[in-house]
Amino acid sequence: MSTEFPPVEPPDETVLREARARHAVLTKPVGSLGRLEELGNWVAACQGVVPPKPFVRPRVVVFAGDHGITAQGVSAYPSEVTGQMVANFMTGGAAVNVLAQVAGATVRVVDMAVDADTPAAVSAHKVRRSSGSIDREDALTREQCELAIAAGRAVADEEVDSGADVLVAGDMGIGNTTPAAVLIASLTGSEPVSVVGRGTGIDDQAWMRKTAAIRDALRRARPVISDPVALLATAGGADLAAMAGFLAQAAVRRTPVVLDGVVVGAAAVVAEELAPGAREWWVAGHESAEPAHAIALGHLNLKPLLEFGMRLGEGSGAVAALPLLISAVKVLAEMATFESAGVTNKGGTTTEADAANEAEATTKE
Amino acid sequence: MSTEFPPVEPPDETVLREARARHAVLTKPVGSLGRLEELGNWVAACQGVVPPKPFVRPRVVVFAGDHGITAQGVSAYPSEVTGQMVANFMTGGAAVNVLAQVAGATVRVVDMAVDADTPAAVSAHKVRRSSGSIDREDALTREQCELAIAAGRAVADEEVDSGADVLVAGDMGIGNTTPAAVLIASLTGSEPVSVVGRGTGIDDQAWMRKTAAIRDALRRARPVISDPVALLATAGGADLAAMAGFLAQAAVRRTPVVLDGVVVGAAAVVAEELAPGAREWWVAGHESAEPAHAIALGHLNLKPLLEFGMRLGEGSGAVAALPLLISAVKVLAEMATFESAGVTNKGGTTTEADAANEAEATTKE
Repeated sequence: MSTEFPPVEPPDETVLREARARHAVLTKPVGSLGRLEELGNWVAACQGVVPPKPFVRPRVVVFAGDHGITAQGVSAYPSEVTGQMVANFMTGGAAVNVLAQVAGATVRVVDMAVDADTPAAVSAHKVRRSSGSIDREDALTREQCELAIAAGRAVADEEVDSGADVLVAGDMGIGNTTPAAVLIASLTGSEPVSVVGRGTGIDDQAWMRKTAAIRDALRRARPVISDPVALLATAGGADLAAMAGFLAQAAVRRTPVVLDGVVVGAAAVVAEELAPGAREWWVAGHESAEPAHAIALGHLNLKPLLEFGMRLGEGSGAVAALPLLISAVKVLAEMATFESAGVTNKGGTTTEADAANEAEATTKE
Repeated sequence: MSTEFPPVEPPDETVLREARARHAVLTKPVGSLGRLEELGNWVAACQGVVPPKPFVRPRVVVFAGDHGITAQGVSAYPSEVTGQMVANFMTGGAAVNVLAQVAGATVRVVDMAVDADTPAAVSAHKVRRSSGSIDREDALTREQCELAIAAGRAVADEEVDSGADVLVAGDMGIGNTTPAAVLIASLTGSEPVSVVGRGTGIDDQAWMRKTAAIRDALRRARPVISDPVALLATAGGADLAAMAGFLAQAAVRRTPVVLDGVVVGAAAVVAEELAPGAREWWVAGHESAEPAHAIALGHLNLKPLLEFGMRLGEGSGAVAALPLLISAVKVLAEMATFESAGVTNKGGTTTEADAANEAEATTKE
C-alpha cells in the first residue's frame, strides 16, 4: 500500500490576483472587509475561478477512535463515551450536528478504531479496536497505519467525488489529545509541559499522569520523526492517521479545508509532512484552549478565524467558523460593483485594472 | 420631546444560571464550547427563557446621514456616495445585504440626514440634509437632535413590535468616522491622535486634516460631555443620534443587539450615557481596524467576537458575526443531553443540579 502522495500544487496565484482585482471594484473601500476579503480570494484561488462559486456541499467527516493511553488515567471520561458519542452523532444530538445545520453542512462519521461495535454504516474503514498505550508501545503496526492513511485518503476522494466543495475533519476519541500533543511536540520540537492540556477537563492528578505519558511517548517517538507514517504508528492512532490522509488528499484534490482544534491540528502537522504544501489548502477555523494547538497553528503558519476558547473537538470549532467562509465567498460573488450600482469610486477608478493598482498601493501603505 | 429613557433592567440573572446548568448536561465537557456557551447563556438571559428560542427575525437597520465635516477634506470619497449607497442597499448590492442573506437577516435603511433626496420608503424620519461642520459649528440644533433620538427609539419599537428578536445597527455616511472619533474621545477622555483612523482609506494629507478637525471638534464638545443630547447635537449628527436612541431603546425593550464597528460603537458609548446599563444587552460583533473602536469597546467592557480588521461599517462586521450568535442559541436549544443520548458523563453526574455544581467548580479552577 502506498502512502506516497503526489506533489501538491498551490491554489491558483493568477486567480488570486484576479480575485483581489474584483474585490477592488465592489462597492466598498479597497480592503475594508479585512480578513473576509482574504478568505474569499483564497477560496477563489482554490476553486480556480473568479467569482468563486458559493459552496453547495460543505461536508464534515468525524474520525472516531479509542486510545490505549486512557488506561493510564489521562482523561476525565471513560472510553465507552467514544462509542456512545458515535451514536449521538448519528442521531444528530451532538454539538457538531447542531452547528453543521447552521452552516448548511452535513456530517459523516467514520469509525477507525472505536473500542466498541458500531453500525456498518460507519465501520467500513475500521482498522482495529483502540490503540496501543503510546507511553510504552506502538499505537498501531505499520500496516495498520498505512491502512488508516489510505482509508482517510479514500474518504476524501469519496467526498470530493460526491460534490463536497469544502471539507472539515473532526475527531472523537476519549484520550485523543494525548497522542495529538505528542505528534505536535515531536514535529515542532516542543517540551511535554508546553503541549499538555486539560483535554475534556482533567484534574491536577490526571494532568500529572498525562504529562508523564506525553513525556514517555515523546521519547519513543523521537527516533521516527523523519518518517511520518512511522510516527503515526508509534505515537498516533488510526483516527489520527486517517485524518492525516484525509487532509493531505483534500489538498491533492484541490479542495479547501477548515481545520478544527488540537487533534485535527496534530493530524494536519503530520499531513504537511506527508504531502508538503498541503497547508496552502487549509484555513484554521479557530484556536483551541489546548496549548498544543497554538503551537501547531504557528508551525503551519495558519491564523485562526475564531478565538473562542473552544476545546470540544468533533470539528465543532471549524463548523462554527464555516459561515464566515461562506460569507466571504458570497460577498466576492454577489456584491454589486461601483459601475453596476452607479456608485462613485475613490478617485474615479472604475476598471478592475485601475482598482487593482489602487488596491496594491493601499496594501503597501 | 422626551429624551429620558426608563431605567434599563439587566438580562435575567436567574435564567442565566439556568442556562449554565443546562449547558452542563449537554453531551460535551462543561465549558468546552468556550465563548459559544457564554453567548447562548446571554441570549437566554435576554429572552428570559431556557432553552432560548432560535431567532426568527434578525433585523439590520442602517442609519444613513451626511456630515458637513467632509467639506474639510477628511474623507477619500465624496458625499454623493452616501445617497448612492442608500440606493445600493435598497437593491441588495452592498456588503451588508449579502452578509445578511447568509445570516438569515433582513435589512432596513433609514435616511436621517442624507444630503440628497431619497425614496419615501426610507426618508420618513429624515431630520435634515447633512450636518454642520463639527470643527466649527454644531452638527444639529438641540431640537433636531431630540427628533433624531426619538426617531431611533421609534424605529427600535417598530422593529421589536414587528417581531425582530435580534437587532443590528449599521451606519452609512461619508465622513462619519470623524464625529464617531470625537464622541468616543469625548466620553473616554482620549487624545485626538489616539482615535483618528484611515476611515475609507485616506492618505497622509487627509489624515492630518482629519486629526485637526477632530482636535477642534473635541474642543467644542468638551463643555457638554455630561449632557449626551447636547454632545450628539454638538459633535455627532442625526444618524449617530438616531443610532444612540435605537441602541438604548433596544435595551429598554429587552432585545439583544450585535454591535458593529466604530460608528455604531460611538453611538453605543453615548447610548450607555442616555440609558445606563444598556450595554448589558449588546454584544460586540467585531473589532474594527479604526483605532477608536477598541477604545469604545474597552469603555463599554465588551469583547469582540471577530477580529478581522474590517472597517466598512453598514453593520457588516456585526452581520458577519451573527451566525455565531445563531449557532450559540441553537446549540443550547437543540443539543442532546447526557441522559437523552445515553452518554456517560464525567463522574456520573447527570442531573442539572449536579452538573451546575460541577460547572461552578470547573469555572473556579
